[in-house]
Amino acid sequence: MDLVQGASQSGDRYLDQSLDYLLLNKGKMLRPALVLIGSRFGPHADAHKDKLLHLAGSIETLHLATLVHDDIVDEAKLRRGQESIQSKYGKPYAVYMGDYLFTQCFLMLVDYSFAPENIKRVAEAIKRVCVGEMLQYQRRYVMDGSTKNYLKVISGKTASLLAISLGVGAYESGAPEEVAKTLGRIGYNVGMAFQIVDDLLDYKGDEKDFGKDTKTDILKGYYTLPIIRGLKSDAGGDIRAILEKVKLGQGDVETLIYLAKTSGAIASTEALAQKYTQRALNFVAQLPEGEGKEILQEVIPALLHRKK
Amino acid sequence: MDLVQGASQSGDRYLDQSLDYLLLNKGKMLRPALVLIGSRFGPHADAHKDKLLHLAGSIETLHLATLVHDDIVDEAKLRRGQESIQSKYGKPYAVYMGDYLFTQCFLMLVDYSFAPENIKRVAEAIKRVCVGEMLQYQRRYVMDGSTKNYLKVISGKTASLLAISLGVGAYESGAPEEVAKTLGRIGYNVGMAFQIVDDLLDYKGDEKDFGKDTKTDILKGYYTLPIIRGLKSDAGGDIRAILEKVKLGQGDVETLIYLAKTSGAIASTEALAQKYTQRALNFVAQLPEGEGKEILQEVIPALLHRKK
Repeated sequence: MDLVQGASQSGDRYLDQSLDYLLLNKGKMLRPALVLIGSRFGPHADAHKDKLLHLAGSIETLHLATLVHDDIVDEAKLRRGQESIQSKYGKPYAVYMGDYLFTQCFLMLVDYSFAPENIKRVAEAIKRVCVGEMLQYQRRYVMDGSTKNYLKVISGKTASLLAISLGVGAYESGAPEEVAKTLGRIGYNVGMAFQIVDDLLDYKGDEKDFGKDTKTDILKGYYTLPIIRGLKSDAGGDIRAILEKVKLGQGDVETLIYLAKTSGAIASTEALAQKYTQRALNFVAQLPEGEGKEILQEVIPALLHRKK
Repeated sequence: MDLVQGASQSGDRYLDQSLDYLLLNKGKMLRPALVLIGSRFGPHADAHKDKLLHLAGSIETLHLATLVHDDIVDEAKLRRGQESIQSKYGKPYAVYMGDYLFTQCFLMLVDYSFAPENIKRVAEAIKRVCVGEMLQYQRRYVMDGSTKNYLKVISGKTASLLAISLGVGAYESGAPEEVAKTLGRIGYNVGMAFQIVDDLLDYKGDEKDFGKDTKTDILKGYYTLPIIRGLKSDAGGDIRAILEKVKLGQGDVETLIYLAKTSGAIASTEALAQKYTQRALNFVAQLPEGEGKEILQEVIPALLHRKK
């Protein structure tokens, strides 16, 4: 079953073709997987399987909407190993395609008569995603950013959606409130670790391997923890001097990466990711025994040790 | 009561400030007004007044979302007599603010426990808006456009939202199915006439009077009926020759307007707007007597004879 099948049946041929193109490469399907894992903790996981698959599909559709819009903002040329929508079809088209996917997500949520409080939970999470993205954009090129501010950004733009993915599957399959809440906390902490690790890839990644432009965060003025913490280290003056240049060259970026490493900023960032991972695993330990718990115990460490 | 009050309580100061700025100039509030007029046809118009006001607010919030995104696509500098969000805060910020407002709309819909089928109706209408906008964008600079294709675009981007505004208010206040459907048809025809008249303003308008850039449709490659029909008239060759220029000057635009007038394209466009208006009024005649009907009989002709 194709989780996001409804998305490319818009009734307009050109739109359907561009949606098919977007769906060519499915990505990790992390969020829908979390919805289905969460649903294992409720009694209706099997009886309501179809409905839960639609819930998972709506969350992936929502994630696609945010990716399409993110690529406009970041002017990203690549996404999931192929040309991004904004690059292939133009920014204006990408604006409307994202809107279409947002609406499609809501339509899927309303169509399958999920509990209104769960639809509301998802909508609240999307709001936090938007606020996080806006905060991130607004703070570009700001050199006095704090770890706290960075965490606020990723809490909104990433962790809130992972939290709701894991939590809403549990709620919808009738899991006890306390279990669903614990799952939400696991999703939140996994999301925090996930984004910190993802941002670290810019300092370690290889463009070919990851299917998206790497090392561009710095150039676009998105200063993540290796820079934020590097700026507060002994290397702060050197890092600031480079960032204040009108235009950064490849050599500047390499120097920044070198300084982030030698100042200890990368190591302390990795430690923070590890802390969130451990928190997530501590919450996993509180879950009732069963298949869902075992999957989480396996998946979480693997997810956060992606290829560097 | 402020219909869109919830929108600027995001919890983020910068976002709240930018939302307050967006809400400074309220515009015509046509869509929420239609929701409330529609609701007069049901028995619960007074008992459910608060709920219906929230429904009206959610539709206006949705409309604001589309305006913020439209201004990105059109690179519009002005909106409702003040600087547009995309111009003042940048396109990326406008992308996320539109997403935030879309989500806020859905949250308002889910929050006040409207009938799920009504939420679905609104979501379907938003989908048609997106598809209409995408079709319009994709057909820019196309010189063999037909009236039919133009009508398909405005049916999606404008008429579907006016149809749902009038219809969903009626459904939610418990109006009979047949009355709600008739109201939807009225909204649709008013929407068609409204957009045709709005597009005509580019051929008659004065920038100062309307608070948005005029005469820019042609420059952006959006060929509306005066051009589409002019191209099919005896003046077609002359119009095509101008449109094929690499860059149009003010003189070219004035010649195009002159040719649209003298070829009869503007007169036939006005006649079409009149036809939709008459259709809307014919449907109004079928409505049960009462305050709502009287308001529509007054409002529709006034709405479609805006200052030229």
